[in-house]
This record gives sequence, C-alpha cells and structure tokens, in this order.
Amino acid sequence: MEELKERIRRLGVVVSEQTLKLDEVLNHQVEPRLIMELGKQFALLYRNEQVTKVVTIESSGIAVGFATALELNVPLVFARRKKTLATDDELYWERVPSFTKGMVTDIIVSKRLLGPEDRVLLIDDIIANGDAARGLIRIIRKSGVHLVGLGIVVEKSFQAGARAIRDEGYRLESLVRIKSLKGGQVEFE
Amino acid sequence: MEELKERIRRLGVVVSEQTLKLDEVLNHQVEPRLIMELGKQFALLYRNEQVTKVVTIESSGIAVGFATALELNVPLVFARRKKTLATDDELYWERVPSFTKGMVTDIIVSKRLLGPEDRVLLIDDIIANGDAARGLIRIIRKSGVHLVGLGIVVEKSFQAGARAIRDEGYRLESLVRIKSLKGGQVEFE
Repeated sequence: MEELKERIRRLGVVVSEQTLKLDEVLNHQVEPRLIMELGKQFALLYRNEQVTKVVTIESSGIAVGFATALELNVPLVFARRKKTLATDDELYWERVPSFTKGMVTDIIVSKRLLGPEDRVLLIDDIIANGDAARGLIRIIRKSGVHLVGLGIVVEKSFQAGARAIRDEGYRLESLVRIKSLKGGQVEFE
Repeated sequence: MEELKERIRRLGVVVSEQTLKLDEVLNHQVEPRLIMELGKQFALLYRNEQVTKVVTIESSGIAVGFATALELNVPLVFARRKKTLATDDELYWERVPSFTKGMVTDIIVSKRLLGPEDRVLLIDDIIANGDAARGLIRIIRKSGVHLVGLGIVVEKSFQAGARAIRDEGYRLESLVRIKSLKGGQVEFE
C-alpha cells in the first residue's frame, strides 16, 4: 500500500490533530486504478470467507466497496443516510453521530437486501471513532446475517473506533494505519 | 442492454406513473459485473472524445461513474450534496431541486478538481426532470472546462430532462429509455 500512503502524504490535508481531509484520495475524487488495487487487497484478505455480499455506506465507501465486490463477484449494497427518522417496517435503521460531518444521521438498509444466508463483508473508507461502522454492525446483527469482518482503507489508530470493534471480537482489516496527525504531519504506523 | 432491461423489469418497483424505484438495480444494491458493462458502454460511446475526467453526483451515480472512469483510465469526481449553502470560495455550487428526494439540495464541486484543460464526461444513473444534471452542467460551465457530453443509465423519456439538455446542444447518451410507467408497467422505447 505504498502508493496509497504516497497519495495520502501528497494530497491529504491535515485540518487538525484529529482530522485529515482526503478529498483527492477517497472523498471527492478517486483514481479508479488505485481503488481497484484496494478492492483486490480486501478480496484477498477475505478470500476464504465465502462472502456473499459487500455492504458499505454512502458516499465515500461506494467506490472501494464496488471494487471489492467486483473482485469477489458479489453484489454491493450501499446503506443510505437519511436526515429524518425512518419508520418504514421494511427498513433496518440506526441513528449514528458522524465525526466528519459533525451531525447525526440515520443509516438505512432495506430488509430485502440482507437474507439469513448472507455472509457480509463491511467496507468503508476511513475509521475514526467508528460510529458509522458500529451502526452498520448493529444493522447486520439485527438482520441475522453473518458478518465475516470489516475492511477499512484508512484507520486513524489514535482514535478509538477500530480498536473498540476489534475488542468486540470482530475481524477488522485496515490497509494503512495513521498513528498521528501532530504538527500537521501524517505519521503512519 | 437487454440484461439491464431484464433487471429493471424484474426488480424495478413502479411507485406511480412518474416514479420508478430502482433500489435493487442502481440506488441501493448493484451487481458490479453489470455495472462494469454499463461503464464499458459509456467508455465506448465517448472513446474518441479524449475524456480527462468523469464527473458524477453522489450517491447513485458513483458505481457507474467509477466503472466508466476505470474503463477510460481517468479520475472520477463525485459532486457532493449539501443541505446547507456553501459559501466557501474554493467550491462551485448550484442549488437544485430533486425529483426523487422531494427537496432542494446544493451540489458542490471543489474548484481544485476541475482545471481549464479538462474534458469532462458527466455520468448519472437516472434522468427524470434533469435538475441535478443541469446543476452539474452549470458547474462545468462556470469552471470553464469542456463538457464532452452526458451518459445516463436510465432515461425516463416521458419526462422533460434529457430532451431539454439535448435541445441545448449537449450530447446525451442513455443506455435504456423508458417511455411510460402507466398501469404499473415499465414500457421501454
């Protein structure tokens, strides 16, 4: 993942000691060839898990989720975010705060899209405090499908999200881990 | 595009004579292999246009935009939607109504991502009244880049969006055209 690290160093914008803007890497513009490499990496890590579906969250997870699902030759579900509470019986929903957005959103997945026989791989772009990922995990558990694990492109390991999810017993694989943004510098583990 | 039509017939939900829900085709779950076929089709249609960048709108345009950009080997920019007015000088923004969402959103693209030398292909999933597409076209024009054309997966040709954009002189290619949803039936042209 040296190419990903190089892009993060070159194009990432350190906004604060907590926040790294990756608009030109993951969140607003993507390089499809690099994203395909990330998808191949996740597919390789989970190749023995009989994944039947990749699940991600709109919007920044979609490109890498798509690349992973293409490699695994399974459908991609992208959870939607809504500003208003869904009361539809046909939906799973979880309310989660968003670290980057500074607001609360509801994450929604149609019940039709998750069957009891599914083996789901969760893919997302970045994990900080892990609120969105934990919301998706709760949806997966409600639906009764098997969660084989998570694949995260960028883990900010100085924040608690990934560690907390691993401590709950889930497999979480990240492609690069950032241990600090101090002094405006991205420091990888 | 017979496979796409077959999926739309089988999985599309006609909500009203104006509205077709394509959650299991484009908007909530996608079949990556089929989406890659759509991307290849757009890449073929615009192969002589020296496209330097594919631009789409979050979220449902991202998968097919990604597939197109991968085929053309160019970056994908996904415009973001915001609920609040952006006043950032570094952004292009346009306020547009959304037919499917029933609300107004701001479409935003960072100025850094569109340079005067760019030749942009706009990709989106569905065109109805064309408000989002026209918002993106206005952003493209403001930025001064050359718009080579639009690629739309599903054109609802009984609504005015695609026709109006073609009437303005833009090239707009759609992969399937739906002429009616009357009687709960999807009728293709």
